[in-house]
Amino acid sequence: MATFSPLIDRLLETLRVLPGVGPRSAQRMAFHLLERDREGGQRLAQVLSEALEKVGYCERCRNLTESRLCSICEQSRRDDHSLCVVESPADLLAIEEAGGFNGRYFVLHGHLSPIDGIGPEALGLDLLERIVSERQVSELILATNPTVEGEASAHYIAEQLRSLGVRCSRLAYGVPMGGELEYVDGGTLSRAFMGRQPFE
Amino acid sequence: MATFSPLIDRLLETLRVLPGVGPRSAQRMAFHLLERDREGGQRLAQVLSEALEKVGYCERCRNLTESRLCSICEQSRRDDHSLCVVESPADLLAIEEAGGFNGRYFVLHGHLSPIDGIGPEALGLDLLERIVSERQVSELILATNPTVEGEASAHYIAEQLRSLGVRCSRLAYGVPMGGELEYVDGGTLSRAFMGRQPFE
Ligand SMILES: [Zn+2]
Ligand SMILES: [Zn+2]
Repeated sequence: MATFSPLIDRLLETLRVLPGVGPRSAQRMAFHLLERDREGGQRLAQVLSEALEKVGYCERCRNLTESRLCSICEQSRRDDHSLCVVESPADLLAIEEAGGFNGRYFVLHGHLSPIDGIGPEALGLDLLERIVSERQVSELILATNPTVEGEASAHYIAEQLRSLGVRCSRLAYGVPMGGELEYVDGGTLSRAFMGRQPFE
Repeated sequence: MATFSPLIDRLLETLRVLPGVGPRSAQRMAFHLLERDREGGQRLAQVLSEALEKVGYCERCRNLTESRLCSICEQSRRDDHSLCVVESPADLLAIEEAGGFNGRYFVLHGHLSPIDGIGPEALGLDLLERIVSERQVSELILATNPTVEGEASAHYIAEQLRSLGVRCSRLAYGVPMGGELEYVDGGTLSRAFMGRQPFE
């Protein structure tokens, strides 16, 4: 690719910290902002910097927030007895948007990964244990990803909190709604068979 | 979409100043930076702000640059007699990447659009006229877009500079390389017919 000026080249390169942005879209973004929306671009730079500086973890559930407590923990109409453990804020958002769950959340920000040095502390499991016992949580929904690591993390957490007498559950595995059986992968299909339900 | 914290919501909204970024990709970008690359995000905010503040127009060709002259105008091995007029820096880049042209450029940053109040001054046509006469340009390649507005701007410029005795040319219209005739639109096809060339 032809080079521009040093500063524009640096901008093109830096835009690629954004996920899904390759050389072409970096170029389109840079030109758009420089040619047509400098004000919007400056606003983006300012809000981005402020968010990265101020947004941290909710004290209670480790959801992302710039306040002490996140907006979900602030809601009084939530069911304190039901706590859903997720790997990421994006997972939390997906569950909120799906609707139907009215309890609280706990965000791990990852999964156990001894190879990468991610242990129980990094996932905030001591805080989780404290929340479960102090706030009288009766059901813990372990909504970590349906992957080897997510599975292992769920098992580890269930094991750790067993002594607190909390009931642990896991999202059902099965064929996705609206899909056609012939396109469902074998692993999912066999889990769906094992978990088959009586038909009424 | 479920709301997050005020600051995160503002970030999600502001990311959409970027072209091609909808609610979903804004979310993916925000979470990626907040969860996995705060340092990269801060670098982006800083470089973006600096570029928007410092990048202006080259004094000679109006290409984007933070210097007095752009990198192309700085090159001494370019042919001063041939000047290519384009609507945008992106067009300039596309021609540079295609290769084969070794002259200079002039960037209009738009096209004539009386409805939007974009006249000859906004396109820098007085500077263009001065460059053409002072730098002894012999050929002006009017590489504005093959649209009604690009066409009209090319005609206007050719008319304005007629008295300077500069030869004006326009990119050839025709069927795109590698395309299949049946998929070429009618307007392009009829222009290609009108512009047919002797076959040797
Ligand atoms: Zn919270
Ligand atoms: Zn220049």
